[in-house]
Amino acid sequence: MTRLQRLLEAARSRGANAVAVVSGTNLRYLTGLQYHAGERLTLAVFGTDGRCGFVLPEMEAERTQKASAIPMAIYSWNDAQSPQAAMDRLVAEMSLGGQAIAVEHGAMRVFELLALQRAGVGETPDATPMFFELRMVKEEPELATMKRAVQMIERSLDALLGKIRPGLTERQVASMWLAEVLNQGAEGPAFDFIVASGPNAASPHHGTADRLLQIGDLVILDGGARHDGYNSDITRTIAIGQPSEVARRVYDVVLAANTAAREAAKPGMSGRDLDAVARKVIEDAGFGPQFMHRTGHGLGMDVHEAPNIATYNTEVLPVGSVFTIEPGVYLAGQTGVRIEDDVLLSESGGVSLTNYPRELIVI
Amino acid sequence: MTRLQRLLEAARSRGANAVAVVSGTNLRYLTGLQYHAGERLTLAVFGTDGRCGFVLPEMEAERTQKASAIPMAIYSWNDAQSPQAAMDRLVAEMSLGGQAIAVEHGAMRVFELLALQRAGVGETPDATPMFFELRMVKEEPELATMKRAVQMIERSLDALLGKIRPGLTERQVASMWLAEVLNQGAEGPAFDFIVASGPNAASPHHGTADRLLQIGDLVILDGGARHDGYNSDITRTIAIGQPSEVARRVYDVVLAANTAAREAAKPGMSGRDLDAVARKVIEDAGFGPQFMHRTGHGLGMDVHEAPNIATYNTEVLPVGSVFTIEPGVYLAGQTGVRIEDDVLLSESGGVSLTNYPRELIVI
Repeated sequence: MTRLQRLLEAARSRGANAVAVVSGTNLRYLTGLQYHAGERLTLAVFGTDGRCGFVLPEMEAERTQKASAIPMAIYSWNDAQSPQAAMDRLVAEMSLGGQAIAVEHGAMRVFELLALQRAGVGETPDATPMFFELRMVKEEPELATMKRAVQMIERSLDALLGKIRPGLTERQVASMWLAEVLNQGAEGPAFDFIVASGPNAASPHHGTADRLLQIGDLVILDGGARHDGYNSDITRTIAIGQPSEVARRVYDVVLAANTAAREAAKPGMSGRDLDAVARKVIEDAGFGPQFMHRTGHGLGMDVHEAPNIATYNTEVLPVGSVFTIEPGVYLAGQTGVRIEDDVLLSESGGVSLTNYPRELIVI
Repeated sequence: MTRLQRLLEAARSRGANAVAVVSGTNLRYLTGLQYHAGERLTLAVFGTDGRCGFVLPEMEAERTQKASAIPMAIYSWNDAQSPQAAMDRLVAEMSLGGQAIAVEHGAMRVFELLALQRAGVGETPDATPMFFELRMVKEEPELATMKRAVQMIERSLDALLGKIRPGLTERQVASMWLAEVLNQGAEGPAFDFIVASGPNAASPHHGTADRLLQIGDLVILDGGARHDGYNSDITRTIAIGQPSEVARRVYDVVLAANTAAREAAKPGMSGRDLDAVARKVIEDAGFGPQFMHRTGHGLGMDVHEAPNIATYNTEVLPVGSVFTIEPGVYLAGQTGVRIEDDVLLSESGGVSLTNYPRELIVI
């Protein structure tokens, strides 16, 4: 079955008559098409009867018809004709008045929802779980692309480490890293890189700042490359000069948790089971409260997708899913350590796609 | 009046009892706070009675209370407590049940809207026009930041032009340009840079591709720098080797249109009036149908904001607004030219913030 057929089957089984998809990764996954998620109404509708329609700005119409992997009826609009009129025509011609249309609650914006509602559709249940399910198990070409994205981030990290020295700001290091990622031919960064040094490393979501790297710092480096729409995501924590005893102790605990979870991953485990493996190592070492986030998240066209490696995910991890394993320990005001790998769940267990050395690198 | 006071006045005058703001530029404008617009409910509510509440993930609570320019009651949630419970508490304690709450139709996502609706708020009119109005007239510190962002993009463009040569791909040129922008200390790119060469330049929204730059090409270079949350946006079209006669002719027409509009900008004109100045030059030269987009857009914390320089904007352009002037002519299958500047409307007329040479550069 094609991706579209599987989506429509999921929609049917949940009582939806169509799925509406906005600019973003789900649309790219289905059709190969990419648009900027701007202020212009751009909305594809896939009916369970097999008909597909696409409301989009006139200037995008030509390239869309040429490039789409799925034939779609185009409902274009321009500055002189309102997008609502195009939306109304689509809903009328696809006979979707009063019908249930699944929409992406996590991606669709209010003006897009209103355009559908004003055109007279009925209920608008969440399409997110359908796409999560569809995209969770990676096909071979997707895995090949992700492995290339991993290669890009690992090579760029390697090049970066040769250039890091005390006196650089976190922001400078992040910029240098991004330049190396682009140098590898990446489409772009997977996300805004995190460079968190010294006490800043104690905040798991620290935004890279102007702090200077200093002797005695641990530095968390969290980055990823986007290649042909797929992301890699890696974290390594390095030391600038010899680290303190407590920093070394924390590093060893986090590395043990990372290793335990990577090695424990097996078909049949739930996200909660795997999270518990990493968490137990850290709790046993007495740092439970200092590991305040999930162990990992699914990875693919989105940096955060299904499946979550978290206490709240009781579902079994499917073979073919890819997720991060990224335990961390954060000592408020002092320091922090996170070590993150991207793991594919195969029939025989977890296979780490990232293999950059995990021993503490001292610069 | 503070920014918040002006927002609340605008809300009151439109019959809203509060304004709800999600992660993004409006929240940064009001509070200085920045969050990743991820899948975690992060929603600030500003009541017209002066009370402010903020639903956000627990791990963000501490830094938020320290850093916000506005005191806010924090309603935090974590993986064990649902975000809806936090949202319900906020709506109850701020007495917003059944009340009209303005929300950003262009930025808020469906799951955020549903969280408000499930908590029992009433109507949810669009807050976008309030923010457009509020942010359209730039304050002095904002202009200083934008001028710095312009300096970054102009210097990076200058460095880039020294490195462009035939045989590079569009993508390589875009990566080199981004590296130069980061080198200037920019927070990041304002948007995905456009490098459109040869026939690709005929598509105004061409996505940078693998085409090799060739002798005889015109190349459209469209980029911007983000500095402290504010963007610059410039386009120059260059030639690789001597351009054809028709390419030169198109270049001269577009430059004349750009110059005419920059020089015509005056207080009292509408967006439509100013658009007409550029459009007339191009129409008189016989290329009207080949200029199929608006003349420009407002620029600031967003790359596209108010005011539009477009036939559909009949409102008067306020003194203190900043907008692009970017006429273009696109000859399908052949070539294209766009020349874009960032213009501040002052009491005495338009002042171009971008001043990179506009004569055709032949490499």
